[in-house]
Amino acid sequence: MATVVLPSGELVEVRGGDLLAVLKERGETAVAVLVDGQLQDLRDPLPPAGEARAVGLDHPAALEVLRHTASHILAHAVTRLYPGAKLAIGPAIDDGFYYDIRFPEPVNRDDLPRIEAEMRKIVAENLPIERVWLSRAEAEAFLAEKGEVYKLELLAEIPDERISFYRQGEFLDLCRGPHLPATGLAKHLTLLDVAGAYWRGDSRRDMLTRIYGTAFPTAEALAEHLKWREEARKRDHRILGPELDLFSIQNETIGAGLVLWHPKGARVRHEIETFWQGEHYNAGYQLVVSPHIGRARLWETSGHLDFYKDGMYAPMDIEGQEFYLKPMNCPFHIAIYKTRTRSYRDLPIRYAELGTVYRFERSGVLHGLLRVRGFTQDDAHIICRPDQIEDEVLGCLDLTLRILGAFGFRDYKVALSVRDPEHREHYIGSDAMWDEAEMSLVRALERRGLPHTRMEGEAVFYGPKIDLHILDSLKRSWQLTTIQFDFNEPERFDMAYIGDDGQAHRPYMVHRALLGSLERFFGILIEHYGGAFPAWLAPVQAVVLPVTEAEVPYAEGVTDELRAAGIRAEAWTKERKTLRWLIREAQVQKVPYMLVCGAREAAGGVVAVRLRTGEDLGPQPVSAVVSRIREAVSSRGTTL
Amino acid sequence: MATVVLPSGELVEVRGGDLLAVLKERGETAVAVLVDGQLQDLRDPLPPAGEARAVGLDHPAALEVLRHTASHILAHAVTRLYPGAKLAIGPAIDDGFYYDIRFPEPVNRDDLPRIEAEMRKIVAENLPIERVWLSRAEAEAFLAEKGEVYKLELLAEIPDERISFYRQGEFLDLCRGPHLPATGLAKHLTLLDVAGAYWRGDSRRDMLTRIYGTAFPTAEALAEHLKWREEARKRDHRILGPELDLFSIQNETIGAGLVLWHPKGARVRHEIETFWQGEHYNAGYQLVVSPHIGRARLWETSGHLDFYKDGMYAPMDIEGQEFYLKPMNCPFHIAIYKTRTRSYRDLPIRYAELGTVYRFERSGVLHGLLRVRGFTQDDAHIICRPDQIEDEVLGCLDLTLRILGAFGFRDYKVALSVRDPEHREHYIGSDAMWDEAEMSLVRALERRGLPHTRMEGEAVFYGPKIDLHILDSLKRSWQLTTIQFDFNEPERFDMAYIGDDGQAHRPYMVHRALLGSLERFFGILIEHYGGAFPAWLAPVQAVVLPVTEAEVPYAEGVTDELRAAGIRAEAWTKERKTLRWLIREAQVQKVPYMLVCGAREAAGGVVAVRLRTGEDLGPQPVSAVVSRIREAVSSRGTTL
Repeated sequence: MATVVLPSGELVEVRGGDLLAVLKERGETAVAVLVDGQLQDLRDPLPPAGEARAVGLDHPAALEVLRHTASHILAHAVTRLYPGAKLAIGPAIDDGFYYDIRFPEPVNRDDLPRIEAEMRKIVAENLPIERVWLSRAEAEAFLAEKGEVYKLELLAEIPDERISFYRQGEFLDLCRGPHLPATGLAKHLTLLDVAGAYWRGDSRRDMLTRIYGTAFPTAEALAEHLKWREEARKRDHRILGPELDLFSIQNETIGAGLVLWHPKGARVRHEIETFWQGEHYNAGYQLVVSPHIGRARLWETSGHLDFYKDGMYAPMDIEGQEFYLKPMNCPFHIAIYKTRTRSYRDLPIRYAELGTVYRFERSGVLHGLLRVRGFTQDDAHIICRPDQIEDEVLGCLDLTLRILGAFGFRDYKVALSVRDPEHREHYIGSDAMWDEAEMSLVRALERRGLPHTRMEGEAVFYGPKIDLHILDSLKRSWQLTTIQFDFNEPERFDMAYIGDDGQAHRPYMVHRALLGSLERFFGILIEHYGGAFPAWLAPVQAVVLPVTEAEVPYAEGVTDELRAAGIRAEAWTKERKTLRWLIREAQVQKVPYMLVCGAREAAGGVVAVRLRTGEDLGPQPVSAVVSRIREAVSSRGTTL
Repeated sequence: MATVVLPSGELVEVRGGDLLAVLKERGETAVAVLVDGQLQDLRDPLPPAGEARAVGLDHPAALEVLRHTASHILAHAVTRLYPGAKLAIGPAIDDGFYYDIRFPEPVNRDDLPRIEAEMRKIVAENLPIERVWLSRAEAEAFLAEKGEVYKLELLAEIPDERISFYRQGEFLDLCRGPHLPATGLAKHLTLLDVAGAYWRGDSRRDMLTRIYGTAFPTAEALAEHLKWREEARKRDHRILGPELDLFSIQNETIGAGLVLWHPKGARVRHEIETFWQGEHYNAGYQLVVSPHIGRARLWETSGHLDFYKDGMYAPMDIEGQEFYLKPMNCPFHIAIYKTRTRSYRDLPIRYAELGTVYRFERSGVLHGLLRVRGFTQDDAHIICRPDQIEDEVLGCLDLTLRILGAFGFRDYKVALSVRDPEHREHYIGSDAMWDEAEMSLVRALERRGLPHTRMEGEAVFYGPKIDLHILDSLKRSWQLTTIQFDFNEPERFDMAYIGDDGQAHRPYMVHRALLGSLERFFGILIEHYGGAFPAWLAPVQAVVLPVTEAEVPYAEGVTDELRAAGIRAEAWTKERKTLRWLIREAQVQKVPYMLVCGAREAAGGVVAVRLRTGEDLGPQPVSAVVSRIREAVSSRGTTL
């Protein structure tokens, strides 16, 4: 006999395990049961004692079950429509689900409505979903008969002898579950997209078709998500990038994962870099510059050739010595540190560099600016005494909050990654060092009133870290800042400072990147602003638009005046176009300020000011416009 | 019978060719004879008709002969002191001479006085120097007997049957000449240095000892040169680099030819970059950013894998594709150009990038910052219509004169490199293009009143160019700016613009770098300024020096005030040192402004200002010091 909390909150005793019958009897609907924090099927046996909680569709934990079942409904529909289709895997993901399938014929977006219609039929049929246990031999025979080669490969990796399948109607799929009790509960689903995906993400294996979809507990939640998705799609940096002529990635000519920053993108980058450099100089950092290649022995010493070789490109031979493209800047900064004997008075030393590194990523996982092969880290290494670490961490936090705040990021989540307390032998550095470093991170967060989530076992082997995630204007979370202790490299490179006792001591070292990488940050910024950069970042801040040919000289004069005031202004006078066309084009290019020059404005020595937002400010003296734009730029605000 | 102009200007007729006798008779001294612009020995036969000019030691053309003879005197002395020494080559060079020798025992700087003493003996002996013609067989027998393996190798490459040797006393050396008539004329010589040098510059062959020396016509000229040399030595960027903590090149840890910019050097670089970027934006350039690697096909298309492969590093395989470290930025800029259809109205387009490239150089030729393997070009590519090229070249000239002028470079020499008119088939591009491009270069130079030297046959195969050389503060010439037409890449990359006729046309493309590379330019700058950077470039602009512990808070307040005004100021308060020590240290570090804070200054709210030049400005209000420094910085002048 088990005690179960029903979705309504009512506590019932369930005998014989038939929870479904109890629910039906009480007129309640549930989708799964939470037992000790783990979800299981409503039909699964309940624990002999203790509490279980039946959850409804609206429970946060139910979303994954709903979407997992939706992926089964998708596969079910596909097997009805495309006999011979072979199924691979179909998990729930962050905002929906997908299924990877080898189709007997090419399938594209146009086929989605037909598949979705079949899925709706299966939902309407409200088929019970039940777990079936097969022996390994039965499972193999079943999958082999259907030619499910991918499932057979998955099966071979399951160590158990009893194999879990799920059945709904005539459809039976290898699956651990849990699932909804019946297909009728997955009413609010839709298919979204089709993409190619290698089996097991390996480009040497079969290319499968991945169908994406999503499902929600209510029609309203689904509609809201689709609206959000449409907004996100319009802001997709891979679409806005070429549209606004910001950057390109040319797989065929240049190479996958390598970014060309076009003039307008490079202008935004220039403004970010200039701001970043100024803030770092003000915060007592010393900028340095290091090369992009270095001898193999550098990476032997650092240990990267042991634990990071897969992320590095093949070595180049130069006169009998091996050189690697750098995946990290740290060994170079350490080499600068080591050119002199450092005293305790010289610390902290904060070396910063916008350092471009190259790391191997499989072509299959590259994604616009967000995942690339070459990127510029806004990197720094802080080398300090033990008594300085808390203030240094605090300094990093203050700097990142100031810098991220300038881009309008003010919602933060912080994760603290520490050792797995059960496996301290997997980590280097003494307990005292780990404790000291962890405490410095926690205290600095507390001093700035930043709550954090403690993640045990998430630390890398060489030190604890904090990651700072921001929420963008679409409420998506992005991990940007990392503040990472390193107990490894100071040892390996034998770094030292002379203490006030005249003895050599090992310094602490902290790696930190605030924006992460300029490429990824730029991708996030494009989506965050939807391409409508605030005045201080806008590649072109103002366009001056003559109404007729007669106002061209006046427009050019106005443009010169703006430029002399340091404003990035363009006179759009090269081609004769209507004012309507010019304004539309400026709107498409998301130029913050449009300054219209008609005969009346030219005669009055003013310009008619129109903002990107659509707001019409009417005629204004040029000096007033200059002040307005300069104010918007220097405040780094989004108000135009 | 020949007519000879004597050094005195007297015209004499020389019969039988005994010019030496004539000179002696008239009491004149000469060292060689100029015949048709070629120097020959005084003892050589004179031309049967036409004019010859006997030149004295003070004639510019005589310097090379003097130094070549001095190198023979060196070799002569070595054979006396080190029996068994094997001679390789001993040419005159720009500011002296050297001889490469394999010694039977190690020889270093300490041995130079002894060798030089022996050379002075040979000079005092005033041995006649005479040419001796040997048959090939005699020459071989003579060199073989002495075991002169290097000379034998040189002999094998001489196609003639009569071989020219020179004899002075017991010393006989394979040599084309010409030489002084006697050793007594080489009075003002000295040995300077010892270095290792591979036979034929090939690291797989013998390592020889190279002894450097120099010789001048007068004791005064030699003394002046040694003084200059001492000054240049003090300014050697390889010495000042570590002394001022500007940069390091760590062959063993990082790799030869790869530069680490330390905080102070990177600060100078940052100021140069900021200035350069601002000037380029103002001049209508668009900055871009491109990756450091690119697919092999990019370099196949550009042609670099055909004609520049030796300058490139080995390819890296990434998922079955070959990638190269970039030796040039151009293909990336072209790839940006090609992302859109360009109209005649869009041109000129000027893409600029501080682009870091990697080019192979043998380790033997690497030299501090002046010759490296990785460097940042201040690169730009101008893509324009034929009718725009002259103005674009003019724009490049104006920009480079403005930028170089800011560093105090105002003496220019310009070389124009054009085709070899005899071998037009070696070049690509039509005659019309070459003529048009050459004329645009010449006219732009004329419009700016810059005379140039025309160098036929010096152009690369793809277009004419101009090189601009500057003279530094030690009157040394450095080639910095290059403006290079390229008729090759626009073809190979099929670049186009749509003309006003609606048809596709091929644009002109110009590569240009103004500073050349930041690394080399920085090396030149360090030597040009002797490490005493003007205020706008100085890594630390002002140090604030408390006289006693009591003034530390005041000094820190002053420093904050300077920093708030954007001045790079440091309070030297970490260690208690005497004022004398602090001032000496600031002098060594070449800090422009030293602001002394004693009790009196603290009480009066002033600082006692001392300049790096030694000038003492006495007590000054901090606001006055701030104005003075800001003025020095914004004017980019050398006045402090």
